[in-house]
Amino acid sequence: MAGLVTVEDPDDPRLHDYTGLTDVELRRRREPAEGLFIAEGEKVIRRAGEAGYAMRSMLLSAKWVDAMRDVIDRSAAPVYVVDPALAEQVTGYHVHRGALASMQRKPLPTAAEVLGAARRVVIMESVNDHTNIGAIFRSAAALGMDAVLLSPDCADPLYRRSVKVSMGAVFSVPYVRLDSWPGGLDPVREAGFALLALTPDEKARSLDEAAPHRMDRVAVMLGAEGDGLSARALAAADERVRIPMSHGVDSLNVGAAAAVAFYAVTAGRPGA
Amino acid sequence: MAGLVTVEDPDDPRLHDYTGLTDVELRRRREPAEGLFIAEGEKVIRRAGEAGYAMRSMLLSAKWVDAMRDVIDRSAAPVYVVDPALAEQVTGYHVHRGALASMQRKPLPTAAEVLGAARRVVIMESVNDHTNIGAIFRSAAALGMDAVLLSPDCADPLYRRSVKVSMGAVFSVPYVRLDSWPGGLDPVREAGFALLALTPDEKARSLDEAAPHRMDRVAVMLGAEGDGLSARALAAADERVRIPMSHGVDSLNVGAAAAVAFYAVTAGRPGA
Repeated sequence: MAGLVTVEDPDDPRLHDYTGLTDVELRRRREPAEGLFIAEGEKVIRRAGEAGYAMRSMLLSAKWVDAMRDVIDRSAAPVYVVDPALAEQVTGYHVHRGALASMQRKPLPTAAEVLGAARRVVIMESVNDHTNIGAIFRSAAALGMDAVLLSPDCADPLYRRSVKVSMGAVFSVPYVRLDSWPGGLDPVREAGFALLALTPDEKARSLDEAAPHRMDRVAVMLGAEGDGLSARALAAADERVRIPMSHGVDSLNVGAAAAVAFYAVTAGRPGA
Repeated sequence: MAGLVTVEDPDDPRLHDYTGLTDVELRRRREPAEGLFIAEGEKVIRRAGEAGYAMRSMLLSAKWVDAMRDVIDRSAAPVYVVDPALAEQVTGYHVHRGALASMQRKPLPTAAEVLGAARRVVIMESVNDHTNIGAIFRSAAALGMDAVLLSPDCADPLYRRSVKVSMGAVFSVPYVRLDSWPGGLDPVREAGFALLALTPDEKARSLDEAAPHRMDRVAVMLGAEGDGLSARALAAADERVRIPMSHGVDSLNVGAAAAVAFYAVTAGRPGA
């Protein structure tokens, strides 16, 4: 069981994991370098623990101690109990969910490790928006996608905002960061996956015609909101597919498009 | 052509349409009562005009006058040119899109008017979140839904945030506010629509099994994030359908669920 430690000095070095949480650029650099990520709110903290992430520490306001008692009792990590005003001073925002945990990152699996058992994977290129990343993971988990592969320049799925929007799905869907692009797609094709590039291009085949739910192994490639997939990513795909759109509408947002594509590749397949 | 009027007094009564834009409760009451709504940003203002909404006035910072010149020239409405600091003082926020327009609402059509020509409609119950309303309209437009019916307690699709998130789709998909619930659903059924209630309930039939894209006329019923459809709405439906979900995941967010359902009822139908 961990000890409860009341902290009253915002400069206490034991609170270092929680400093400047609203400074996205700072946290983007610091968190992977220091091997941590921040889980926010009771539900997300519990899900991180259930997914096997080790807790480094927890930062709670006093009224959250009872609600988190079982989590506190199961962990050896220190629990810093602070006044809400001090929490705001340290983190830079009003922590209305009342509980933060600093969790230890785990080494990511390799592409070969996740591709062996997978039949439906998501590939994201240059998705930099933490909200979009989180929303895509949430839909991927709900709709039965087996794994996510990220191009080298995608944003961090374990960034606080991504974790929150995903409702913890970033813990349950295994993901890999590819170290070359688009060269990192070759092993995916070699593992027997059809690479389907999602595009609004009207010349692409519509998803319902392509019937990807009948394919054995499918990888759905998604680009960022706005730009979509790059020309070289499109060139590396086996087929371009589109969601049938009504005339005069720009496009779906990337979260909605992803959900539709995941449904189209998973619905009706054996076991789904 | 409209006149450009430089305004320097934040209390100038001509700016009344734009006061207190960040006060959601105030604007919720005022805008329908005064018959106006606010369009924000060049693209949305243009789309409102193209959809036939009359402009009451426009509020611009000086640097937006050139970009909006053609809109200004086509309209008889006054254009108030203000300093960005004054715009912030009046509206309550920093208007980073630089252009606001107050538009005149149009009378809503009746259910009978929209149902005659429609084959795919959306019915929302108690959707109170302006972001969700906007996202659902955007997906409805993109995926070819013909009309939206709202329960009496749904939020206003013409509220600024809904308009923005919808990318103007609230102007292009006709919508109706039902005046009774769930009694207002009877005319929908009488018009030959199958009422499909979307639910996460595992006992419901999965969308891919229900194959609603083969049905002649379909109405997809959606509830609010969290609560979903009420018991009486579910009782009023012809069939309960679910998106096939992986185990252990709570649900999709309502925007993603709506997009999947719209795809499932429109993809593969003749003409889509």
